[in-house]
Amino acid sequence: MTNDFPGSLAIGIDVGGTNTKYGIVNQKGDILSQSEMKTETFATPELFVDGLYEMLKPMMDSVPPGSHIKGIGIGAPNGNPFRGTIEYAPNLRWKGVIRLCEIVTKKFNLPSVINNDAKAAAIGEMTYGAARGMKDFIMITLGTGVGSGIVINGNVVYGHDGFAGELGHSTIRPGGRTHWGTGMHGSLECYASATGIAITANEMLDENPGVDSLMRQYKREEINSRIVTECARKGDKLANEVYKFTGEILGQALANFVMFSSPEAIFLFGGVTKAGNLIMDPTKESMEKNLLPIFQNKVKLIFSELKEADAAILGASALVWKLDEKSNSVV
Amino acid sequence: MTNDFPGSLAIGIDVGGTNTKYGIVNQKGDILSQSEMKTETFATPELFVDGLYEMLKPMMDSVPPGSHIKGIGIGAPNGNPFRGTIEYAPNLRWKGVIRLCEIVTKKFNLPSVINNDAKAAAIGEMTYGAARGMKDFIMITLGTGVGSGIVINGNVVYGHDGFAGELGHSTIRPGGRTHWGTGMHGSLECYASATGIAITANEMLDENPGVDSLMRQYKREEINSRIVTECARKGDKLANEVYKFTGEILGQALANFVMFSSPEAIFLFGGVTKAGNLIMDPTKESMEKNLLPIFQNKVKLIFSELKEADAAILGASALVWKLDEKSNSVV
Repeated sequence: MTNDFPGSLAIGIDVGGTNTKYGIVNQKGDILSQSEMKTETFATPELFVDGLYEMLKPMMDSVPPGSHIKGIGIGAPNGNPFRGTIEYAPNLRWKGVIRLCEIVTKKFNLPSVINNDAKAAAIGEMTYGAARGMKDFIMITLGTGVGSGIVINGNVVYGHDGFAGELGHSTIRPGGRTHWGTGMHGSLECYASATGIAITANEMLDENPGVDSLMRQYKREEINSRIVTECARKGDKLANEVYKFTGEILGQALANFVMFSSPEAIFLFGGVTKAGNLIMDPTKESMEKNLLPIFQNKVKLIFSELKEADAAILGASALVWKLDEKSNSVV
Repeated sequence: MTNDFPGSLAIGIDVGGTNTKYGIVNQKGDILSQSEMKTETFATPELFVDGLYEMLKPMMDSVPPGSHIKGIGIGAPNGNPFRGTIEYAPNLRWKGVIRLCEIVTKKFNLPSVINNDAKAAAIGEMTYGAARGMKDFIMITLGTGVGSGIVINGNVVYGHDGFAGELGHSTIRPGGRTHWGTGMHGSLECYASATGIAITANEMLDENPGVDSLMRQYKREEINSRIVTECARKGDKLANEVYKFTGEILGQALANFVMFSSPEAIFLFGGVTKAGNLIMDPTKESMEKNLLPIFQNKVKLIFSELKEADAAILGASALVWKLDEKSNSVV
């Protein structure tokens, strides 16, 4: 719940490499209307925004009487809140620096604000979810990659140049597995992302040729975190080991983050969390084991309260309620 | 330089396990008078404060005309700024929770504030040193242990319960060297502290029995970081390797910290920094190598500007200029 006047609404747009989700959200976090469209069919950002406008116009025209759309929040990979841009996003068709807020505001005649997707998720959790009232927490997004949004003293941490919170790229196994994108060794994302889990499953199948596993029913390149979860739930020993290994590494990393900023809670969010206790239990055990005693049994390690399907739109929309604060750029 | 009125002075007290240093400091960071006394000779905190008062009274009586002592800042191991206490400090004679600010304020009839020593060093650097004007930086103290004070958006990070910034205890070598005090494995302090450097030197001497080294002139238990530095400066190969190894690990840890909070600068402070380029060069090289490209060649890695001998008093005194801010407790 926000402090805006009761009829205020926000548009939330989540720009993904494949799909863009968008919707109109009220201050309680109810999505009044939503839809999605393909991102990659639009050759330029201008055409993309034109397409968005066509889709959103009917939704905007049918908001309840007396309500008012305050602005547009955008979550995007490499979204830069200080400049209102998307910068060098590897998974998007549009290269270089995209002045997306400028284009959106011009087209919609509404203030707009952008942020990277993990930071938007953190703001969404703080606005509508389980982080309401919390001043210090960390959101870890476990999807294809590992992202993070860090909140300290009630504010998202941007750091000196806006790039703070790249926890997925911190090294947790020096000299370990090589990252497919960055070339770095042993970063958290190498292990705790869905991509990393699939690699671990393949490695374990290779290293244990004599061990039977339900995972062997699948082609190697098909194995993903969903399949590992299904097999583990059926009691497959090796699939369970995959999550124990993943949780042990993730827990070590989380312990390091706790000793940095001493958060009240860490929220886990994203596709990998569908594994439920398979990932939660070993992660929590490892985190506690790697904490100094003064931090033990204090930090809530919990799954995000935001529904996966809605979270992207909610996170983006939540940026709008912060439009008046100087830490977010407004165009 | 602070914004207090020109004649304002601050008392800075640094409580160490062996010695307590104290002095009177003006807003520019000039120490007008200073001295030190043994900490451990006082059986109770009350007697300790009585002793301090006797030593400080003549100094307070002889401050320049027109000046005014605003308050007392205390840096101490396990100093808790929220409660004005020292809590369970392993290196102090007084056990449990010591309500030091209450005792000091009652005796001196002046407001007092306490903080842990590494956070006090960060505030000192921000007030009088090279961090003036910086909003985002990290102070790493490399002494017997490894401490840290983290500043984000102009504020020291305390976290949910005041314990944030235990970067020395973050794991950088999972399953690595066992910490002599915590029993944890592969924490930064195991390697980058003076204690860790002595252990590394001994390990390298053991592992390379055929390699000649100036360090072999010393009894094993005598070898410390000062001796390693002296030998390295004389061109000793193994002693140089000790610092290369230390810097590689420290740099990896610093890269992780950078990807957390994206600071403008990291300051290194404390006894180990006397090794100069021996520690700085490999640390910087390793830090840069372990950063995502967006962070590379941006973060200033520098030695503290505060003189080692004065820094403890300066850091403690700097707390006084922040007495009006709510993040520090005042008694």
